Amino acid sequence: MVPHLVTALNGPLLELEKKILAATPAIERWFRLEWQEHTPPFYASVDLRNAGFKLAPVDTNLFPAGFNNLAPEVLPLAVQAAMAAIDKYCPDARNVVLVPGENIDSPFYLENLARLVQIFRQTGLHVRLGSMSDKISQSTELVLPDGSTLVLEPLQRSENGRRVGLKHFDPCTILLNNDLSQGVPAILDGLHEQNLLPPLHAGWGVRRKTNHFAAYEGVAKKFGKMIEVDPWMLAPYFAKCNHIDLQQPDGRDCLADNVHSLLGKIRKKYREYGIKDKPFVIIKADVGTYGKGIITVRDAKEIRDPARFADIKLSAIKDGHEINDVIIQEGVYTYERINDAVTEPVVYMIDRYVVGGFYRVHAEKGTDENLKAPGSRFVPLAFAQQHAIPDLQAKPGTAVPNRFYLYGVVARLALLAASLEMEKTDPNPEIY
Amino acid sequence: MVPHLVTALNGPLLELEKKILAATPAIERWFRLEWQEHTPPFYASVDLRNAGFKLAPVDTNLFPAGFNNLAPEVLPLAVQAAMAAIDKYCPDARNVVLVPGENIDSPFYLENLARLVQIFRQTGLHVRLGSMSDKISQSTELVLPDGSTLVLEPLQRSENGRRVGLKHFDPCTILLNNDLSQGVPAILDGLHEQNLLPPLHAGWGVRRKTNHFAAYEGVAKKFGKMIEVDPWMLAPYFAKCNHIDLQQPDGRDCLADNVHSLLGKIRKKYREYGIKDKPFVIIKADVGTYGKGIITVRDAKEIRDPARFADIKLSAIKDGHEINDVIIQEGVYTYERINDAVTEPVVYMIDRYVVGGFYRVHAEKGTDENLKAPGSRFVPLAFAQQHAIPDLQAKPGTAVPNRFYLYGVVARLALLAASLEMEKTDPNPEIY
Repeated sequence: MVPHLVTALNGPLLELEKKILAATPAIERWFRLEWQEHTPPFYASVDLRNAGFKLAPVDTNLFPAGFNNLAPEVLPLAVQAAMAAIDKYCPDARNVVLVPGENIDSPFYLENLARLVQIFRQTGLHVRLGSMSDKISQSTELVLPDGSTLVLEPLQRSENGRRVGLKHFDPCTILLNNDLSQGVPAILDGLHEQNLLPPLHAGWGVRRKTNHFAAYEGVAKKFGKMIEVDPWMLAPYFAKCNHIDLQQPDGRDCLADNVHSLLGKIRKKYREYGIKDKPFVIIKADVGTYGKGIITVRDAKEIRDPARFADIKLSAIKDGHEINDVIIQEGVYTYERINDAVTEPVVYMIDRYVVGGFYRVHAEKGTDENLKAPGSRFVPLAFAQQHAIPDLQAKPGTAVPNRFYLYGVVARLALLAASLEMEKTDPNPEIY
Repeated sequence: MVPHLVTALNGPLLELEKKILAATPAIERWFRLEWQEHTPPFYASVDLRNAGFKLAPVDTNLFPAGFNNLAPEVLPLAVQAAMAAIDKYCPDARNVVLVPGENIDSPFYLENLARLVQIFRQTGLHVRLGSMSDKISQSTELVLPDGSTLVLEPLQRSENGRRVGLKHFDPCTILLNNDLSQGVPAILDGLHEQNLLPPLHAGWGVRRKTNHFAAYEGVAKKFGKMIEVDPWMLAPYFAKCNHIDLQQPDGRDCLADNVHSLLGKIRKKYREYGIKDKPFVIIKADVGTYGKGIITVRDAKEIRDPARFADIKLSAIKDGHEINDVIIQEGVYTYERINDAVTEPVVYMIDRYVVGGFYRVHAEKGTDENLKAPGSRFVPLAFAQQHAIPDLQAKPGTAVPNRFYLYGVVARLALLAASLEMEKTDPNPEIY
């Protein structure tokens, strides 16, 4: 099933679909050359928002969970891509340790881990799960909903302190599925003999959304020039405020100014393209992940209203990490619907390859709300026909594989941006 | 649908399946390391025969047609693999010329070409078809059964003689789907500035089956040692006779001697494994392709019988190429059935990746006959669940994806053998 696009079927996005499909050879060649220069992240998922007139990434996750939501049919694509990735980092690899996130109490997350283990095992690796959690001090069996089990073992530093691994298991690569939002744990610090993927500075404890979207802006500009589309069709405007303190008298100035200016820029674009919607912006912490403390604003005056945000702790972000710096980002409506529910496509990549995706379907959210809010009830719906290839003859807006190709292109732009972002923020840039 | 294996379900092949599945990490790592040392052919298809007690390749085609017989669902796998291949040879490639075989009168072959064009276009290449046929002196449109069209253009040498291409189209890579069974055409000779894939010495006009199976024997031996199985389970015995002339009094000596000795070796193995079947050998030309002049022999005395082969011209091979050298190969029964029809799996690979396969299903042939005989009526049946990944928990012989994994491993052994064969027979070995 493919979501119904509620916007008119002759909107600007169809123009974009047409242009992108027609430019496939140029686009693929461009990506090919970019990946000669830049190393793609080991894996990533990108949340997209499809407004009909605009298709943009709103979140690029370098520690993707949710592999369990992909259709089983795409697993061989994931295995093939993982083979290419492993080849690059550690061709003679035998052993890999996968470091899980903190949410091992979630059966969904365990399914994600099981899927990742399955993928890497099929590439020919011995994969074991190495936990950094205090709660895992010995080999611990976890039972999945289908009755299968996963074994978590405590991650440990080698005696000479130079390597990390498990008891009697020395990996060549440590693959993190833990987003390090609490910062870099000592056990992973100062490793030089092993591949740590993604690198530590990809961790949400240090990674800045504004760095990512600044890199994305550049990528979208370059790409837009190549296929001759307004990069705004692909990129959300954004601004940042550092060191804000809502308790201070002038604590809201930067926010109010930026919201005002962003809304003005969006309004101008909406006028240019004849879009009748009301512009809005999203304010969120520049570091960290998860949906807590995400605010939708439609008018700069809301910022000045002392009653507004009174009950929202902007600092109430994951694991209690306090927010001082925020990103103010153009809100992108999501106009895809399955039945009456709002949907948001999520695209998964391993190395430079799109390996699948699903729709986050939300029955209770509005078109201008973040669908990844805590407690949000979403239904993952694996892309149908996600392993079909585009049909160049089809009328724009009618072919399912064509829409997925479009999604795959935009997701890969975000992937490339993440690669540039990682290069730019690398504390040891000489290794590139 | 997966063919029913008529042999007992506790036969040695199930043991092999079990060993291969259990050794997946070691196998995949081994392939990974081998591909660090050896370049895989650009693409290939491998015909397998599954005797229940033995699974072996009987033909490795480096100019595979039949891509149209793969399930459409595996196209993205093919595209992903082609991307990896293109990256290796010509990362900044824009243009590719695909050189079709001679059989453009076959609608099936045209569908194969259309599929290849589709795959390479999706990797981001401009693909055009460059014909070496005298009949194509100008741009010629060919209509496919579904009403779509392909345009054939005459291949031409550039003015300075250094490159080959089409009018106003200069490719970086020339991809041959023409097996060059008539030898190397002048138009392709002495090209140094472009990639010619596969290389000229892969052409059936010069390539020797015995070279391939000698390389395969080595690969199977190495692989058998690693997973601790008798390499005979995976490799057919073979011998060769050069310069035979059936008209001479002693013209059949070499044949008779080798048939006798091969049948003896096979009989010994059959005894070792308690196989009740009657051993047989296949005699075919050492060069060339297609099924003409393929002889099944069950007793060396048949060779001495002047009446035998009287009506078979061993030299009646494709395009009238005369056979002087033959390969005598252990016959491998095919014991897979769909309904009552004999089937033979064919596995397709691009670069080092298995991208799909199908069953050649033949209603009128016996278990010891070559299923690729001229005029053979076969039904291609795309592997079901070919894009599922193996199930390590399944009972041997019960899981479809496990059987395909087994096929994929053996097909890749043949692929590796082809790579070694190409290295060894390369007239300009310094380029490796």
